[in-house]
Amino acid sequence: MRRNKRSDGTSPTDEEIDALDAHWRAANYLAVGQIYLMDNPLLRKPLEPEHIKPRLLGHWGTSPGLNLVHTHLNRVVRNRGLDAMCVWGPGHGGPAVLANSWLEGSYSEVYPDVSRDEEGMTRLFRQFSFPGGVPSHVAPETPGSIHEGGELGYSLAHAYGAALDNPDLLVACVIGDGEAETGPLAASWHANKFLDPVHDGAVLPILHLNGYKIANPTVLARLPEAELDELLRGYGHEPLHVTGDDPRQVHRAMAAAMDTALDRIRDVQREARDGGPAERPRWPVIVLRTPKGWTGPAEVDGLPVEGTWRSHQVPLPGVRENAEHRAQLEAWLRSYRPEELFGDDGAPSARVLACVPDGERRLGATPHANGGLLRRDLPVPPLERFAVPVEEPGATRHEPTGVLGDLLEAVMDATADRRDFRLVGPDETASNRLQAVYGASGKAWQEPLLKTDEHLDRHGRVMEILSEHICQGWLEGYLLTGRHGLFSCYEAFVHIVDSMVNQHIKWLRTSRALPWRAPIASLNYLLTSHVWRQDHNGFSHQDPGFVDHVLNKSPEVVRVYLPPDANTLLSVADHALRSRDYVNVIVAGKQPCFDWLSLDEARAHCARGAGVWEWAGTEDGTREPDVVLACAGDVPTQEVLAAASLLRRHLPDLAVRVVNVVDMTRLMPHEEHPHGMTDGEYDALFTTDRPVIFGYHGYPWLVHRLAYRRAGHANLHVRGYKEMGTTTTPFDMVVRNDLDRYRLVMDVIDRVPGLGVRAVGVRQAMADARTRHHSWIREHGTDMPEVADWTWTGSGARRADAP
Amino acid sequence: MRRNKRSDGTSPTDEEIDALDAHWRAANYLAVGQIYLMDNPLLRKPLEPEHIKPRLLGHWGTSPGLNLVHTHLNRVVRNRGLDAMCVWGPGHGGPAVLANSWLEGSYSEVYPDVSRDEEGMTRLFRQFSFPGGVPSHVAPETPGSIHEGGELGYSLAHAYGAALDNPDLLVACVIGDGEAETGPLAASWHANKFLDPVHDGAVLPILHLNGYKIANPTVLARLPEAELDELLRGYGHEPLHVTGDDPRQVHRAMAAAMDTALDRIRDVQREARDGGPAERPRWPVIVLRTPKGWTGPAEVDGLPVEGTWRSHQVPLPGVRENAEHRAQLEAWLRSYRPEELFGDDGAPSARVLACVPDGERRLGATPHANGGLLRRDLPVPPLERFAVPVEEPGATRHEPTGVLGDLLEAVMDATADRRDFRLVGPDETASNRLQAVYGASGKAWQEPLLKTDEHLDRHGRVMEILSEHICQGWLEGYLLTGRHGLFSCYEAFVHIVDSMVNQHIKWLRTSRALPWRAPIASLNYLLTSHVWRQDHNGFSHQDPGFVDHVLNKSPEVVRVYLPPDANTLLSVADHALRSRDYVNVIVAGKQPCFDWLSLDEARAHCARGAGVWEWAGTEDGTREPDVVLACAGDVPTQEVLAAASLLRRHLPDLAVRVVNVVDMTRLMPHEEHPHGMTDGEYDALFTTDRPVIFGYHGYPWLVHRLAYRRAGHANLHVRGYKEMGTTTTPFDMVVRNDLDRYRLVMDVIDRVPGLGVRAVGVRQAMADARTRHHSWIREHGTDMPEVADWTWTGSGARRADAP
Repeated sequence: MRRNKRSDGTSPTDEEIDALDAHWRAANYLAVGQIYLMDNPLLRKPLEPEHIKPRLLGHWGTSPGLNLVHTHLNRVVRNRGLDAMCVWGPGHGGPAVLANSWLEGSYSEVYPDVSRDEEGMTRLFRQFSFPGGVPSHVAPETPGSIHEGGELGYSLAHAYGAALDNPDLLVACVIGDGEAETGPLAASWHANKFLDPVHDGAVLPILHLNGYKIANPTVLARLPEAELDELLRGYGHEPLHVTGDDPRQVHRAMAAAMDTALDRIRDVQREARDGGPAERPRWPVIVLRTPKGWTGPAEVDGLPVEGTWRSHQVPLPGVRENAEHRAQLEAWLRSYRPEELFGDDGAPSARVLACVPDGERRLGATPHANGGLLRRDLPVPPLERFAVPVEEPGATRHEPTGVLGDLLEAVMDATADRRDFRLVGPDETASNRLQAVYGASGKAWQEPLLKTDEHLDRHGRVMEILSEHICQGWLEGYLLTGRHGLFSCYEAFVHIVDSMVNQHIKWLRTSRALPWRAPIASLNYLLTSHVWRQDHNGFSHQDPGFVDHVLNKSPEVVRVYLPPDANTLLSVADHALRSRDYVNVIVAGKQPCFDWLSLDEARAHCARGAGVWEWAGTEDGTREPDVVLACAGDVPTQEVLAAASLLRRHLPDLAVRVVNVVDMTRLMPHEEHPHGMTDGEYDALFTTDRPVIFGYHGYPWLVHRLAYRRAGHANLHVRGYKEMGTTTTPFDMVVRNDLDRYRLVMDVIDRVPGLGVRAVGVRQAMADARTRHHSWIREHGTDMPEVADWTWTGSGARRADAP
Repeated sequence: MRRNKRSDGTSPTDEEIDALDAHWRAANYLAVGQIYLMDNPLLRKPLEPEHIKPRLLGHWGTSPGLNLVHTHLNRVVRNRGLDAMCVWGPGHGGPAVLANSWLEGSYSEVYPDVSRDEEGMTRLFRQFSFPGGVPSHVAPETPGSIHEGGELGYSLAHAYGAALDNPDLLVACVIGDGEAETGPLAASWHANKFLDPVHDGAVLPILHLNGYKIANPTVLARLPEAELDELLRGYGHEPLHVTGDDPRQVHRAMAAAMDTALDRIRDVQREARDGGPAERPRWPVIVLRTPKGWTGPAEVDGLPVEGTWRSHQVPLPGVRENAEHRAQLEAWLRSYRPEELFGDDGAPSARVLACVPDGERRLGATPHANGGLLRRDLPVPPLERFAVPVEEPGATRHEPTGVLGDLLEAVMDATADRRDFRLVGPDETASNRLQAVYGASGKAWQEPLLKTDEHLDRHGRVMEILSEHICQGWLEGYLLTGRHGLFSCYEAFVHIVDSMVNQHIKWLRTSRALPWRAPIASLNYLLTSHVWRQDHNGFSHQDPGFVDHVLNKSPEVVRVYLPPDANTLLSVADHALRSRDYVNVIVAGKQPCFDWLSLDEARAHCARGAGVWEWAGTEDGTREPDVVLACAGDVPTQEVLAAASLLRRHLPDLAVRVVNVVDMTRLMPHEEHPHGMTDGEYDALFTTDRPVIFGYHGYPWLVHRLAYRRAGHANLHVRGYKEMGTTTTPFDMVVRNDLDRYRLVMDVIDRVPGLGVRAVGVRQAMADARTRHHSWIREHGTDMPEVADWTWTGSGARRADAP
């Protein structure tokens, strides 16, 4: 954080308190105005029904607290010359953050029609919760925000992600006491065990206890204060309390708490950066306890409102029809003394703006909250350094994620000084075979070290915590502030962040439509330890459905890749790491897998996204194939190629085409996804009338859902995971789900007409092989040698792939 | 909890310690044996390669700690005559819990072929992590378990769910320090704010700090002890520490900690039940700090293993090939002195069994962990009391969830004494219009009460916390121990528990195949505040994809209902509340909605799951209809009926059939889902060759995924939510997603051949109506009167439904 020349902790004079209060009142006025008014914004006339919006859909409860925080952040940012941003956690905080952005001018800079005058104020009010306008939550449309206040739970993880590798940045984070009850938020408190006071910035959590959610008191607000302090100390924080409902007293207390917190942060960072002892510091947290709906109506229709859950939404619901409510609203608005706050033109007065910092220091204008402005292209080294040599398909095997690990190590290394790349994962980097990265960076860790520890590093950029939520939150915060990263995760458990990825995709979809938001690096998932290789973990670890989940979302944003081998994984990862504004889902295996394509072939194949593997089929080019064997995913590719090999041997006259799909969205109509094939392209690959036997990595019906409009859809027969999971061998998994080579050959025989009597014998041989498998596995507990040792040789199987 | 006659806290004699240690050693021996051996289980011969499993896939690290806990739970259960169960949180705890169940005999009772002798021990060893055998996690197959140890995060919430309304039950819960890093677990600590010491049992968390996850130290194990104590006190607990690596010392400390904890629990409950002050007690927590892989190999190949993450899985990986490793394994196994522990027949010795309780008090035999044994049918009152009168379709409106609230109130009331029904939700019971339940039960709350509070009740059975994870975890624990409940949730945010519901469905699928597991009550979701009515919350609150997620899962378990009005919701809810072993997803609106069906009609319609609404169409019965208008969900039903009304007016010669689908799985082939229609049934409803315009509540491609095999699939055209979300009016939402009445009429005109010139004019009128909508909404911010005030009248629209 930048150091200030003057004493950092000067307490404010009465005049400064007046100015802070004026700013706060102005923000409160604007928040109420947004909820209620569509005209007469400065109350130059008595309030009439036609000034009131026909649908009252905003939320007041949290606004005065957020306005207080913003006002006081303005003060310290300005006084101390800080680089700062704020993550606004509470739900429905839109009115407050929009009000502050409009006051400081950052709003009008990105939305010039919402100017900082009476006309702009009218627009500001009208657009709020209005059709086609802005939502009641802090959202991508809100300048200065990297966090949507709708779902709740991720503010603190986002704040930590933003602070990583931003040593000069203060990230304030307002946590509502509702949000604080969620699991992800509760776990995020421990993120301070991973924050490096040397290379990372500071996070200042501000726990706002206004006491209520929608309809209930909150758990933390009703804790005895001593118990709350124990909790926060147990989280590794030193609590600073600000409590009250008298504005001037609260302003003084808040200013003092802010100064104490920032002095403490400055000292911690100075000491760490001057080479002080590497002990984890006790970071400050501010506990702000003010009434919900503070300064709003104390009572409505005889029921208490201010300071209760009843102020959560619209405290006065009937203002358009009910004159008494309308009078109460007018009195409420006038209680802020708007005539002191806004000039004749409607612009905020100089006193209101006295605390507001300048230029990019304004919270609504910081480039950190529009991270694409700061993003630099990631230095991804040439893939040639990492590619595995492939002279013929299937002659060698590698662990694809292990090969990717070498590339990631190089990226880590190339960003050692820039520090703008992080790898996150729930304790699984090595389990997922990416351990090569430790050659370039250890794992972030600020707790005590033991002699037996390996790869832990106070300055590490690999982030491991056993929480997919925190991993995702960190990475989102990191990307949204202009950096790069990758999340490696067990395939089944990435569902833990289904809802988080929803929100991130929605964020990107909305951001892409905002010209002032610069593109950020894509959110890249490596899903491995996948459904087909959970031999010992069994059913609980078998779920390939994240792809289905993501493909429901905005096609502008989502990309799904299933590279079938090491070099295709490199090519896909290279593309993903360079890309912007996407969510890339890459599913790849960590077990040894046949190398099918050389790097050049892999690049060409990935560029097409789907293509014929001529070397694997038996077409002669003179006619349409008799059958298409398609595959997507490493295990299905192996089984399909083994099936092709069996067909080549046993039914050599059959013209078999093998198609491999890397990019699942290629299957979609091109009107529905930018990567979708035209019907002509699709038909050229899959034909319009030949049987297509498709071996797919996940739930088979996903392929139907993508391809149902295609001409050949009626001939499409998909095999995949159909929830037949258990603890067993790799080959037994494909047998149980009818994705094995023998079943695929039987599928071909069942679907290609006119194969004749020879096929009957082949079909029986395949069925016999499956029976043999069942007996073998029951006896030995391992796969039969004919599948365990099978290798591809192009013109057949190298060794016993009987029958 | 039952009281014991003798002093509860007698500390064990040396002889008792010897016996406890013998039990622990026996369990450790059996855990190691399961990981490694397939023969020679009692080491009667020197260990040879052929005794070793070909694939070593188990996990050792957590087992000695779990065995210690089980041994000492045995002791207190036996000494105090407790009713107890344990939730085993740590991953890969299978070997330990299976070992203990086999020792106490409960295993052989449910799996007689795994007898308590040498032959059974061989089977116990061989089946572990073996194809078709048992997984390395605690799982449904494990007697005494309600919790799968695979995904991690939910143990403590499950434990609280089990304790609710079980006043005499002690629920111990072992929390691994890996799991403790997850969000759901971190949030679960605060569940003690909802535990009623009068009507609920006790939860005894045992935080096991063995220091490591798969590959990293854990956050909590490396906290300074004082900071950890602050954290646990902040969670509302009093920590009791058990630390060490000397078995006898640890046995003494553990016995003392257990006694102290149980004395404290007894005192708390006695005081509360004797009418003591209603202050939330400080419940005990045991912090058990023992080495990971304790008693295993200290070093392997020169690297430290015991006490490090290297003992997580298989400490000696090469025992089949490597004679040195094999010798180390043999020495390790013999270090437990099996000859003292097992008799000649292989059965555990009397000393080993000295601490084991009898009968149903054994942790592996408690009926609470096989809750179906205790489950009683839920007293659901006759629906006639709650049904809304419907004399003609569409003449009145009700809030469906409000009507359901009356039914739930009656269920709450009917279970007031039994206390076996709970309603859970994230602070949204009233927001979801279910507030009638407060007439029969308040909301559980153990924190201080204020005068302004409403419906909070120390003994309440409505559970609200702002965490979908905790809600789900509570309910799962409650159902798995034999009770009933319903989870009401905003539709978009139920994705937060995607991964939890995966695991619960997997649990039910597996349990249904185990004859000894009795069926439990279904997990019922009410998803409301749905995608079409998030007017002010906007895009972040709009997601109907949970249905897609659930429908990927085992069809034996999943059911999805979209009742279109209040009476159908009652009928569906009645069925769901009475059902067993399902996950029922019910999507219903909370906004006023037309009443289409009387109760009798609703029952008949829901029994069919899908059917023709003759009164809404214009078929004359003499021929196939020209077009089928299908609908599923309340908003699509309204729009489809409005479209039918427009067609009746403007194209009266068109034979329109209206089909409503309540049960989405009816669309699936009957081979794939027990509710699936035969092709004959499907064709009779939807025809094989007529255009079907289907208005669906969620993502339109879901309908294709369900129906792609049907004869008429090529004619199926589905409208639904296509991620065109924003802050806007209800009608604008359907327009943006092309699900509005005008678009549906245009779809009909575009797809029915030969409609002639008149249809051209009608189509233009529809397009004009959409244009008028766009202008109106931009100007007024509300829906046009012609849609806002539209009502159905059977033979047309009652008032202006122009054009």
